[in-house]
Amino acid sequence: MTVTDIERLIQLLARLPGLGPRSARRAVLQMIKRPETLMLPLAAALRQAAENVRACSVCGNLDTHDPCAVCRDRERDATTICVVEEVADLWAIERSGAYRGLYHVLGGTLSALDGRGPEQLSIGRLIDRVTRPSSSPAERPRVAEVILALSATVDGQTTAHYIVERLAETGIKVSRLAQGVPVGGELDYLDDGTLSTALRARRPV
Amino acid sequence: MTVTDIERLIQLLARLPGLGPRSARRAVLQMIKRPETLMLPLAAALRQAAENVRACSVCGNLDTHDPCAVCRDRERDATTICVVEEVADLWAIERSGAYRGLYHVLGGTLSALDGRGPEQLSIGRLIDRVTRPSSSPAERPRVAEVILALSATVDGQTTAHYIVERLAETGIKVSRLAQGVPVGGELDYLDDGTLSTALRARRPV
Repeated sequence: MTVTDIERLIQLLARLPGLGPRSARRAVLQMIKRPETLMLPLAAALRQAAENVRACSVCGNLDTHDPCAVCRDRERDATTICVVEEVADLWAIERSGAYRGLYHVLGGTLSALDGRGPEQLSIGRLIDRVTRPSSSPAERPRVAEVILALSATVDGQTTAHYIVERLAETGIKVSRLAQGVPVGGELDYLDDGTLSTALRARRPV
Repeated sequence: MTVTDIERLIQLLARLPGLGPRSARRAVLQMIKRPETLMLPLAAALRQAAENVRACSVCGNLDTHDPCAVCRDRERDATTICVVEEVADLWAIERSGAYRGLYHVLGGTLSALDGRGPEQLSIGRLIDRVTRPSSSPAERPRVAEVILALSATVDGQTTAHYIVERLAETGIKVSRLAQGVPVGGELDYLDDGTLSTALRARRPV
């Protein structure tokens, strides 16, 4: 059998995270049943996104404009910058609706194992953004707080420590996300690390 | 945020079976990092498949040619037709490498609940294929056996019974897949139905 068109499509789809060869095959079979409603629109959307979506030169978010919609939004609190590892984290915080400041996407974490140092991340750009003398204060107010929203992993916390040190001399307030029991989490199913962190960080009621 | 290009792409991807909104987002973020190696090739492959892939007019398989590569293959045993529900089942049997005959894709099963009768499936076309007097026996040998490779579900078995009845008067040999313990299956984890089927169908060693 030389069903090259179909096989090539399956191979490409199977390279997406979350799709293996089996689900890629299922997806292709479902799409072929209705090319007009799913397959061709998907092809067009992919081409359009590949051509139009760029990383924001200010914060690293992905958008069809540069600066991105978040950085352009005058309603947002420009005195607060939330530092995240990846664009996916930025989107997750946006979905929560709990934050109205700006962002800074690092592009990953420091990692000795993977050989990622500070120069591979946009940490220098973050320091620039925070310390740059504002030519027109009305246009771009001074940053007052940097919130580190990094993973509670070894690499994430190493990166957080490094940024805290780099920002120490600027005198800017640096905070990080609270750690503890997730909302809806059952104690019985929590790992020991989370449980002991939550115990140590207990708060009076 | 009006990231319409990205959001539209995520929505389309999330409609594929096996991908929810979360994994569609992850897939899009990964693709945007390397548009040249994954995103644009995928867009091209989708458009190509949508334009070129058709159902085989003989057996219902999907291919860029009609008749499909299986039906055109002179090396295959044209006296045996394996009846399957969907193209995915045909591909699964092809991957096993255990079959060298032809196929017939029904396009589903009979289903009283979903209102699918024999006219919605390609059963009539199967009967035609099997009973058609062969104009040139060398060109197209008579079908000697029909193998029913249908799901071991109520609908699958109803469909099998119906096809057996329709083929009864033709005198053609009809068989079905063996049922029993799957290879590598542990008895402890088998459902009662499979276990009792395997017991009833026990074979001397």
